[in-house]
Amino acid sequence: MAERFEIVQKALVKMLEDKKYATLRDILITMNPIDIAGIFEDLEDKQIPILFRLLTKEQAAETFVEMEPDAQELLIRGFSDNELKEVLDELYVDDAADLVEEMPANVVKRILKAADPEMRSSINQILRYPEYSAGSIMTTEYVSLRPNMTVEEAILRIRRQGVDKETIYTCYVTAKDRQLLGIVTVKDLLLADDDEMTIEELMLTNLIFVTTQTDQEDVARMFSKYNFLALPVVDGEGRMVGIVTFDDAMDVMEEEATEDMELMSGMTPSEKPYLRSSPFELFKNRIPWLMLLMVSATFTGLIMTSFEDALAAQIALSAFIPMLMGTGGNSGSQSSVTVIRGLSLGELEFRDVGTVLLKELCTALMCGVTLAVVCFAKIWLVDHLLFGNENITLMVDLVVCCALCVTVVLAKLVGCLLPIGAKAIKLDPAVMASPFITTIVDALSLLIYFLFAKMLLGV
Amino acid sequence: MAERFEIVQKALVKMLEDKKYATLRDILITMNPIDIAGIFEDLEDKQIPILFRLLTKEQAAETFVEMEPDAQELLIRGFSDNELKEVLDELYVDDAADLVEEMPANVVKRILKAADPEMRSSINQILRYPEYSAGSIMTTEYVSLRPNMTVEEAILRIRRQGVDKETIYTCYVTAKDRQLLGIVTVKDLLLADDDEMTIEELMLTNLIFVTTQTDQEDVARMFSKYNFLALPVVDGEGRMVGIVTFDDAMDVMEEEATEDMELMSGMTPSEKPYLRSSPFELFKNRIPWLMLLMVSATFTGLIMTSFEDALAAQIALSAFIPMLMGTGGNSGSQSSVTVIRGLSLGELEFRDVGTVLLKELCTALMCGVTLAVVCFAKIWLVDHLLFGNENITLMVDLVVCCALCVTVVLAKLVGCLLPIGAKAIKLDPAVMASPFITTIVDALSLLIYFLFAKMLLGV
Repeated sequence: MAERFEIVQKALVKMLEDKKYATLRDILITMNPIDIAGIFEDLEDKQIPILFRLLTKEQAAETFVEMEPDAQELLIRGFSDNELKEVLDELYVDDAADLVEEMPANVVKRILKAADPEMRSSINQILRYPEYSAGSIMTTEYVSLRPNMTVEEAILRIRRQGVDKETIYTCYVTAKDRQLLGIVTVKDLLLADDDEMTIEELMLTNLIFVTTQTDQEDVARMFSKYNFLALPVVDGEGRMVGIVTFDDAMDVMEEEATEDMELMSGMTPSEKPYLRSSPFELFKNRIPWLMLLMVSATFTGLIMTSFEDALAAQIALSAFIPMLMGTGGNSGSQSSVTVIRGLSLGELEFRDVGTVLLKELCTALMCGVTLAVVCFAKIWLVDHLLFGNENITLMVDLVVCCALCVTVVLAKLVGCLLPIGAKAIKLDPAVMASPFITTIVDALSLLIYFLFAKMLLGV
Repeated sequence: MAERFEIVQKALVKMLEDKKYATLRDILITMNPIDIAGIFEDLEDKQIPILFRLLTKEQAAETFVEMEPDAQELLIRGFSDNELKEVLDELYVDDAADLVEEMPANVVKRILKAADPEMRSSINQILRYPEYSAGSIMTTEYVSLRPNMTVEEAILRIRRQGVDKETIYTCYVTAKDRQLLGIVTVKDLLLADDDEMTIEELMLTNLIFVTTQTDQEDVARMFSKYNFLALPVVDGEGRMVGIVTFDDAMDVMEEEATEDMELMSGMTPSEKPYLRSSPFELFKNRIPWLMLLMVSATFTGLIMTSFEDALAAQIALSAFIPMLMGTGGNSGSQSSVTVIRGLSLGELEFRDVGTVLLKELCTALMCGVTLAVVCFAKIWLVDHLLFGNENITLMVDLVVCCALCVTVVLAKLVGCLLPIGAKAIKLDPAVMASPFITTIVDALSLLIYFLFAKMLLGV
């Protein structure tokens, strides 16, 4: 599918170069705005306005929303005041607010000047809410109904107002002071037996809503729990101020999962797609963590140094250090990632800490013992007998396997406790994933290793 | 919010114990079925049927869908044939198919016997499609219109048929042989200026659809790209067979992100939520990877052993091994996770391999040089001067930092190439994440380290 689409895209760019505008226009009219926006990504700067002017008015606005900020800026700078006004009039308020956030100051000034007063004030309202809050991703355009309307009146109102609304399928019943009273869906309206029924009789009053301050991650979670098309947003006094639609919630879900994965692998999350980030931007997101973890590995170095004599006396011991640290790190990151994902999907809460700890302890014991037994056999059969390494005595083998078992258990406990602890002190649990845990487990595993060496080998 | 809900939940369970059924019924009627299903999770087995019978018929079915399989099974076993029939009649076909998949054979037999013939054949149809395909998550209940209908006739048809359909908002225009011709939304119908307009004039013919065989991950990606409420599913001959709705796509998105994270941290993905998995199940998902990675760490052990003499001669060298391997592993997993996420969101394709490689090389050089410089200064100032470790000479410091720089660069290249390579041979790229890459990078970093030691120190 993706490849077929690429061929179409290339053919269209070719037509543009050959100035076959009439044919191009005929093809564009059949296309989805999101796919059209994709074509703009491969165009040279001077071709962008030419292709854009071939679009119908409605398509132009829908395509504009989906374009990359660079292309948007280029187009706005080339627009006449009238053209800008036309595009803005077709935008939903939340998309206009996103645009204003992305553009440089002088472009923003032109946008706000061209917007009609109502849109201008809505944009300003949305921009006032904190980043990542429900207020910042909502739109202020929704269909509101009054409780005393009849079904027939409500449908009439939707028909009259619906054009400018992002969704008409869920309508919000509000009182005179904009207090949210209930919800009516178009399905309920269409399927109502009696057109003279009032909205009050039909509406659902079991309200599920968010406030302007609700974190966008919680908003997304409510969508995936309740399967809504849209969720009402109210202010501190319970007055309806906007709605968040499911498509924005889907974007948030994707963003948050990406952010978690980036944090989990020791990177500062970035909203810029990979292919559009410069190596220097990637460097900036990655180096602080690498640096921090490198410096904190000093501790492992110190532990190694302080056991230098032991290592020199039993030279066979050092060969197992990478395996020990690696297995410890892997065990720990399994637990931490499981717990982090559970926390971010809302399946786990702080109060579950006891259950998690017990479950991880049991799992860790099973994993630890199994690994130790296999490791013991492998070292003896392969390293000692097969490769004939005389330095590896039964006692050395025992030291490695005891250390392995204890390391795995401790690693899993650290792995599950740190993210829950982070959550408790309002940090993002994802920060406590593999790189961080590996560093701690590395130090722990060495300490345990040398402790067993001291006890069993007397070094 | 979650805590407030818990208090309500406890109060309701108390009412059930005190047999205050009338009050309980009055409260339940105002609640969302998804929240009601939450209450069932905390009930004892014998309380489940009591609470369930307090629900209205419609609520009962909607709640039933959201319940855990254990509770569903318990209820079905207790249902009379009539009760079972009533619940089944209210279910959407895709939910019924999910239920059949979860239940043991003898319960399935009862379900299929109680279902009406049409539903039975739809369930069987859905179950025939491969797991994780569009066919397996679709529902066969959608509103279909004919091209020659007028807007008025179409609305009438929706009003007549809509009750049983999962969504009425997107309607599908089909020919007599069920060929998909176009799409009409209820918004288009309601906002049409003229009730006598035909569907053919109004419908969108720019069709975006999937086939029954399309992978569910691709289906989810199309939803997040195009923001649809529903996506039509056609068979090999282009005949309409069902729709996938956005809520199912959201579930898939969440599932796939979780699966990627599990694979990335070396676990076999499981669909069972963490809190419902037994330690033995967790053990089974985790031990194969730990075992595999532990055994493959044998190579690092062999490398260490073969350089035993070098380590014995320059005892200071071993202290930096954990730092070197750790930093290499972290660098590699940053790149691999970035690339894996890009691939799974469809932002990266195999053809981007050149771009990715160049970008990672530049980033890696910047990271490598920066880390090496800082590391050099840190070792000299802290380890040599501050701690007075005489074994750490300038040459040792140089060996460590040269090895660090080269390791970081190689780790990042391995980290970005392996997932892309996996994709090319149709493996899940997520398998090629940190644990796997760490193991390779561990061995690489040791080889590089000893190579530099040989060159610069002559050991």
